[in-house]
Amino acid sequence: MPSADSLLVLKETDNVAVARAPLADGTIVTVGDRRLTIHGDVPAGHKVAISDIETQAPVFKYGYQIGVASEQIKAGDYLHTHNVQFSSHTKPSPDDFGTRSHELPGLPARTTFLGARRSDGRTATRNYIAVVSTVNCSATVCRMIEDEARRRDLLRDYPNVDGVMAVTHTLGCAMPVGRGTDILRRTLAGYAAHPNVAGLLVIGLGCEGNQIDQMVKHIVLRPGTPIARMNIQFSGGSRATVDSALAAIAEMLPEVNASFVREERPVSELVLGLNCGGSDAFSGLTANPALGYASDLIVAQGGRSVLAETPEIYGAESMLVRRATSRSVASGLLDMIDWWEDYTASSGTTMDANPSPGNKAGGITTILEKSLGAVAKAGQAPLSAVYDYAKPIDTDGLGFMDTPGYDPVSVTGLIAGGANLVCFTTGRGSALGTRPAPTLKLATNTDLYQRMPDDMDVDCGPVFTGGASLEEKGTEIYNALLDLASGKPSNSEALGYGSNEFVPWHIGAVM
Amino acid sequence: MPSADSLLVLKETDNVAVARAPLADGTIVTVGDRRLTIHGDVPAGHKVAISDIETQAPVFKYGYQIGVASEQIKAGDYLHTHNVQFSSHTKPSPDDFGTRSHELPGLPARTTFLGARRSDGRTATRNYIAVVSTVNCSATVCRMIEDEARRRDLLRDYPNVDGVMAVTHTLGCAMPVGRGTDILRRTLAGYAAHPNVAGLLVIGLGCEGNQIDQMVKHIVLRPGTPIARMNIQFSGGSRATVDSALAAIAEMLPEVNASFVREERPVSELVLGLNCGGSDAFSGLTANPALGYASDLIVAQGGRSVLAETPEIYGAESMLVRRATSRSVASGLLDMIDWWEDYTASSGTTMDANPSPGNKAGGITTILEKSLGAVAKAGQAPLSAVYDYAKPIDTDGLGFMDTPGYDPVSVTGLIAGGANLVCFTTGRGSALGTRPAPTLKLATNTDLYQRMPDDMDVDCGPVFTGGASLEEKGTEIYNALLDLASGKPSNSEALGYGSNEFVPWHIGAVM
Ligand SMILES: [Ca+2]
Ligand SMILES: [Ca+2]
Ligand SMILES: [Ca+2]
Ligand SMILES: [Ca+2]
Ligand SMILES: [Ca+2]
Repeated sequence: MPSADSLLVLKETDNVAVARAPLADGTIVTVGDRRLTIHGDVPAGHKVAISDIETQAPVFKYGYQIGVASEQIKAGDYLHTHNVQFSSHTKPSPDDFGTRSHELPGLPARTTFLGARRSDGRTATRNYIAVVSTVNCSATVCRMIEDEARRRDLLRDYPNVDGVMAVTHTLGCAMPVGRGTDILRRTLAGYAAHPNVAGLLVIGLGCEGNQIDQMVKHIVLRPGTPIARMNIQFSGGSRATVDSALAAIAEMLPEVNASFVREERPVSELVLGLNCGGSDAFSGLTANPALGYASDLIVAQGGRSVLAETPEIYGAESMLVRRATSRSVASGLLDMIDWWEDYTASSGTTMDANPSPGNKAGGITTILEKSLGAVAKAGQAPLSAVYDYAKPIDTDGLGFMDTPGYDPVSVTGLIAGGANLVCFTTGRGSALGTRPAPTLKLATNTDLYQRMPDDMDVDCGPVFTGGASLEEKGTEIYNALLDLASGKPSNSEALGYGSNEFVPWHIGAVM
Repeated sequence: MPSADSLLVLKETDNVAVARAPLADGTIVTVGDRRLTIHGDVPAGHKVAISDIETQAPVFKYGYQIGVASEQIKAGDYLHTHNVQFSSHTKPSPDDFGTRSHELPGLPARTTFLGARRSDGRTATRNYIAVVSTVNCSATVCRMIEDEARRRDLLRDYPNVDGVMAVTHTLGCAMPVGRGTDILRRTLAGYAAHPNVAGLLVIGLGCEGNQIDQMVKHIVLRPGTPIARMNIQFSGGSRATVDSALAAIAEMLPEVNASFVREERPVSELVLGLNCGGSDAFSGLTANPALGYASDLIVAQGGRSVLAETPEIYGAESMLVRRATSRSVASGLLDMIDWWEDYTASSGTTMDANPSPGNKAGGITTILEKSLGAVAKAGQAPLSAVYDYAKPIDTDGLGFMDTPGYDPVSVTGLIAGGANLVCFTTGRGSALGTRPAPTLKLATNTDLYQRMPDDMDVDCGPVFTGGASLEEKGTEIYNALLDLASGKPSNSEALGYGSNEFVPWHIGAVM
């Protein structure tokens, strides 16, 4: 029985489409005004050729070449490892930069959100007082300060303040000097000086490796930001430190409240962190490309959007290298890949350059196609910048930040870099939520959206089942991001997530 | 002016004593019935010979040889690097085991405490329901369960239950297989099956590397312990999981409450973890040797006491090797030292085999003397066992566990191994506190004790100033430990410490 909805075409320039449901050999389907007869039994989520492809000619999915035909392919043929191959995983050269053209979507209806401009030109989407610990030894005191501020209802008369948030971690002492310590300091400094933070307490123990005075030097605070610092050893111990901190907060509150005024701001002031976790076979078909469309809408208006998770783009570097706006951006990205190869080797493991059996069962044919799923979050925009973990996101357009794939660590790097919004896609389900920048969570499938109704914000399942086009869903996500930026709480914010999701990347020995 | 209190003799077999205050050249002091004339200006905390020492003869402090005289030394001479040397830091051989004799103190007045015997023969000092997360992604739900149990006052009718405790961490996914994953599973399993845990919830996300089913296999639960396990992805999301967990806790509570009955138990059922952090020049003179005396009192009665912090005994392996009860214990300890040398080298750092300039200014002459400060916590008992990180502490007597020096990580390993009490010494001040086993904190000096009155439990300063002998202070610590084991809260327990101090040792890459 022919159906207009049996196949999902991800990009108009593609020569493959994805089966929305299992298609038996001989089924007749329509794609636009073409009628195709399916050859082979195609599982749901697997690929079908929608035009003839000559031997050795490129196979395109979501606008990218994912491999070449290893034999003559006819429109309607089932496509997988039997007739598509990716023969050589050759490293791209930085000189390949700029060789991929791209087109961004036109201007959407909404081009502003309600944000609060800060004195340094950055724009806040939330308004917190942060209580940052230098070391695990002061973590409990920091959390007591947050809990006690809530218990005493300190914010009662300050409606423009979203909360007192403890920023705690397991590190800060017994670490050798080097990249690990640098990353910790940079990450803490990024949270302390985040546009969504308007008052700061830094709490140390007193004898830790990561001394307050050293750490505070790394924080580029906006002039006039109220700050208090105290060491438990010199403040009378735990209870006395909590009391002093609460007094300091009470003193800061009027100013922190008054300085936050939401007004209409252009989308160019958004800094969006892109992330995914618990991916499934739908991730690359629904939520990720729909988010990519939303990301392109933001980039098209001069905003910033940042992809991350270096191990998850492995094998697909060329896709991003060809989109790089300069040789230095391209070589910066390739250096990050190199570092990961060395790092994993020295840790006794490897980066995997092949789709797993599970990936193949899900319809993934080549490593490029696998990483395409992850990279689809970044849309079509040119790659304008690369950032080391937690470094300031200072360039308009699409960027890439070097982070692990592990969700809390990756998102922490993006927020430390100044992301004032995060968008996270998941197929299996995720319980992530963040502060001081909020996270919007996209379900790749409707089943998940219905199973975790209090956690997931947007259902991208209809893209697969035919209820919405990628552009429609992408526009819905874009609008949801603008609402979130304007102060509407995400589900994870309403649940109170964010304290345990701050996890700075830890590299190096614990002594 | 002669004074009986000018010198502190740490062990009767020593040929050196420590100046309690600065002693000017020519001062006359008494030691027991001897009168000595001080030669040289001796800063407080530095050493004086109390008998003549021939060239190349051994110098003993706290019962150990810390070096040899590099010239003829007379009773009353100031001793430091100018006349004492430690010429070769040769590695001891495992065949050196058992070459050091030792004497344990006689039986003290108190030989029992009030503990609750469990069905596996271990003895509980507290009674918790643990809510263990498999992965950081379920950490917030675990903490919500703890908070909500408190908010709803679920324990109101169950006076024998000390609390519902979330056991959360930053790990559990994106970790390569290997020692890192093994350690995480073992540590979580050790907490889950701790004698102080009588009801267990294991909460996962659903798609993490550290799957619930795999993890639960590692937990050696006492038969009949109530357990509930749930994955957020299959339990309706965050809020629904919290609700299900609270229902499961409500069901467990009557049994968890009824099964905990304190009765008089012998000291042989104590398992004491020894630790220190923020050490100062007094650590090795007051709190550490006084704790060592208390540890010996416990070991003398068939109890268990476990030293840890491998990097902090570096250079003094021979002290412990000579106390080892077998060749395999000695070689196990030496293998741990070897591993740390290789590990720190591969992490681009080193173990330091020399006292620092700050140590020397504090009166530390040799690396042996430095590590003696740390090892003094373990008293004089023979070394009966060595344990890999978080492995079950299954041998009576003194043991050694391989852990980093970093306080929360080291203490977590000891509790995972089954310590039902921890004793922690500090000179600079510490805000550590633990669950499900409580921690007693000893101040090495009175100034600290007075500066952090709500955190520190025992003041060991009088040992230095002459107000108490080591034996007196050690007995006071021993009695305080028995009170703590019997249910008297430590200061850190009263403050509510323990959630953020669970930090499993992390080795290996974050992917
Ligand atoms: Ca801009
Ligand atoms: Ca991820
Ligand atoms: Ca025993
Ligand atoms: Ca320590
Ligand atoms: Ca070696």
